[in-house]
Parts: sequence; C-alpha cells; structure tokens
Amino acid sequence: LEAVSPGREVLEVLCSRGVVRRYAAEKVDETCIGRMLDAAVAAPTAANKQAWAFVVVRSERRIRLLQAFAPGVLTVPPVLVVACFDRSRAIRNTEGGWDEGLLCVGMAVENLLLAAHALGLGGCPVGSFRGQALSRILALPEHVEPLLLVPFGWPVDPVKSPVRRSRSEVVHDESWGTADGARERVG
Amino acid sequence: LEAVSPGREVLEVLCSRGVVRRYAAEKVDETCIGRMLDAAVAAPTAANKQAWAFVVVRSERRIRLLQAFAPGVLTVPPVLVVACFDRSRAIRNTEGGWDEGLLCVGMAVENLLLAAHALGLGGCPVGSFRGQALSRILALPEHVEPLLLVPFGWPVDPVKSPVRRSRSEVVHDESWGTADGARERVG
Repeated sequence: LEAVSPGREVLEVLCSRGVVRRYAAEKVDETCIGRMLDAAVAAPTAANKQAWAFVVVRSERRIRLLQAFAPGVLTVPPVLVVACFDRSRAIRNTEGGWDEGLLCVGMAVENLLLAAHALGLGGCPVGSFRGQALSRILALPEHVEPLLLVPFGWPVDPVKSPVRRSRSEVVHDESWGTADGARERVG
Repeated sequence: LEAVSPGREVLEVLCSRGVVRRYAAEKVDETCIGRMLDAAVAAPTAANKQAWAFVVVRSERRIRLLQAFAPGVLTVPPVLVVACFDRSRAIRNTEGGWDEGLLCVGMAVENLLLAAHALGLGGCPVGSFRGQALSRILALPEHVEPLLLVPFGWPVDPVKSPVRRSRSEVVHDESWGTADGARERVG
C-alpha cells in the first residue's frame, strides 16, 4: 500500500483543476451547490469585510439571457454563479477604483471552482461580459458590481490540468532576478 | 466505517483554513514550499496571461527589513512570499488601474494558502504595506507590483475556521434580494 501523506488529495485537486466550458445536460443537485457556496465564503477576506455577494442562476431562460451579454460563456450551463463585489463593504473609499476586497472575491471564486472540481463538477471564471446589462437583468443595487461569471456543470470532456510557464520564470529567490531556490534545493 | 465521499478532504480543507499570524521557530522545508508554489501557479489565469510573479524570502534579515514597511506582518515568519502582479502581462492596457489579472493573483494566493493548510502550515494574506519600499528592497522592476505579502510557518496556536455572515445574506437566488435557494432546498 502506498503511504498516504497528509493533504495529498488536496494538493492533487489544487494542481489538477482545469477550465471546463462544455457541460452535460444533467442538473447539479442542491447539496453540491450548497457545498460550493460554503467553500466560497470560507475564503480569506480583508479586514473581515466579506465584500462579496453571489447570485446563483438556475433558470435556463435567465442563463440564456445573461449569456447574450457574456461572450465568454460559450455554452449553456445548468448553473451559473455571478460573483459580485459589494462596494458598500470596500476597504478604501474609492468609487469604482481598486480595492483589496476585489482580491477576496477572486479567492472566493477559486474556492468555488476547487469545491466543484473536488465534487467532479467543472466550471470556468469568465470576465468578459457587459456589466450594466447583467446588473439590470439581475436587479443588482448600485453598490454591487458583477466581477466574474462562473458557469458550472458536469464536464463532458476529460478535465485537462493547466499548462503553465516554468516555475523559474515566475518564482524568484530573496529578490527579483535570482534563481528559484525551492526548485533547485528540492532537485 | 464511515463512507468516504469523494472530495471530502478537500471540502474540509477549503472550509477550515484560517488566518495564522504566529509561527513556530522551525524552518519550513523546501519540499513544502515547492508544493505550495506548484499549487499557486495552477490557479486560473485570465487569457492564460499568468500575470503573476512571486518572491520567496527566507532570510530573517530581509524578512525583518520588509516587516518594517508592512504593519500587517505582526511576527517574523520563517518564510514570506511576496505575490506580485506583472503589469507587462495585464489584459487591459491601463496604467496602474484595475485589471482582471489582479483577480488571478488573488486566486494564486488562495491556492498557496490552501496548500499550506493542507500540509499543516499556516499563513495569512497581508495587504497593508508600503509598496515602494518593498519594491526597492526586492529590486522589483517597474512593471511588477507587490499585491499581497503572505507570511507562512508552522502554527503556534490551533487554527480557527473563519466565521462568516449567514449565507442568506450573501447568496441570492436567480436575482438580487431573493432567498438563498440552495440552503432552503437542502434544508
């Protein structure tokens, strides 16, 4: 028997998640959706502001309507989560500008995607959409800004792990431009 | 024997990660650091730009130097990862402004934190620091912007799962203001 090291399943799931854009017609049951949302809100949140909000869309009619304004949503998924930034909970008081809370919405979406992947589901974060149209369709208040659309479903095709630049290109040791120490030392 | 449902360990790790700000003096071995970085770069990345860069700082002298400009880093960790946004790989061509690639750096940091938690390590994303001072200390080129500091180490105290607003406050069904369907239907 192979020794099971702690966290092995988690590390595998973190590294094997891939983009899923085509979904089977099957519904996603509410237990799965609930687990994904629980994972999403467990993400880190700057100053505990929890400056996020999620709209879960299951109605095919409404999903098709949203899709008309979101070229990044290629096929109709059984579920579409609209991840929003709640500016009334921003850390800085800048209108429309950069805020740390935005990063936390990104982290929450990553948790959503990882929970989905762990459950055998697949999804894909989509940033190309017409925000004003979406806000109108979803009746979002002015302080709530749609940030990412996340279509979900049971994958039709095998999930491919992401291909990335070599780690030595993106990881620096002690300061910029030095070799990737970790990789060297691990061998 | 309890039935093991797929992904259970992953869902537990996603929901039990908490902020760790005090670290034991023990070093973090390079295998762990390597696994964490592998997980980080497996995060989603808009348009496959991989607009991220990481500086891994292990030298105590340098960590103390960085800490002097980062009030959010409360104690000296054995490792500090500086997660940066590489503007030369931004999707939009806006100087200093908002870019989808920023969200991907957030997602990569969440993967880093989750991998750490899975390995028994703990960390905490820190956004309050003086970016210019950090850039000088780390010799970052102009297009590379430090976004989050992530100190890591072996936790001294038990890790507390995050406490969050009730899901019905942040999750909406079909459109804004409606009840949280998933929770209702699961019961």
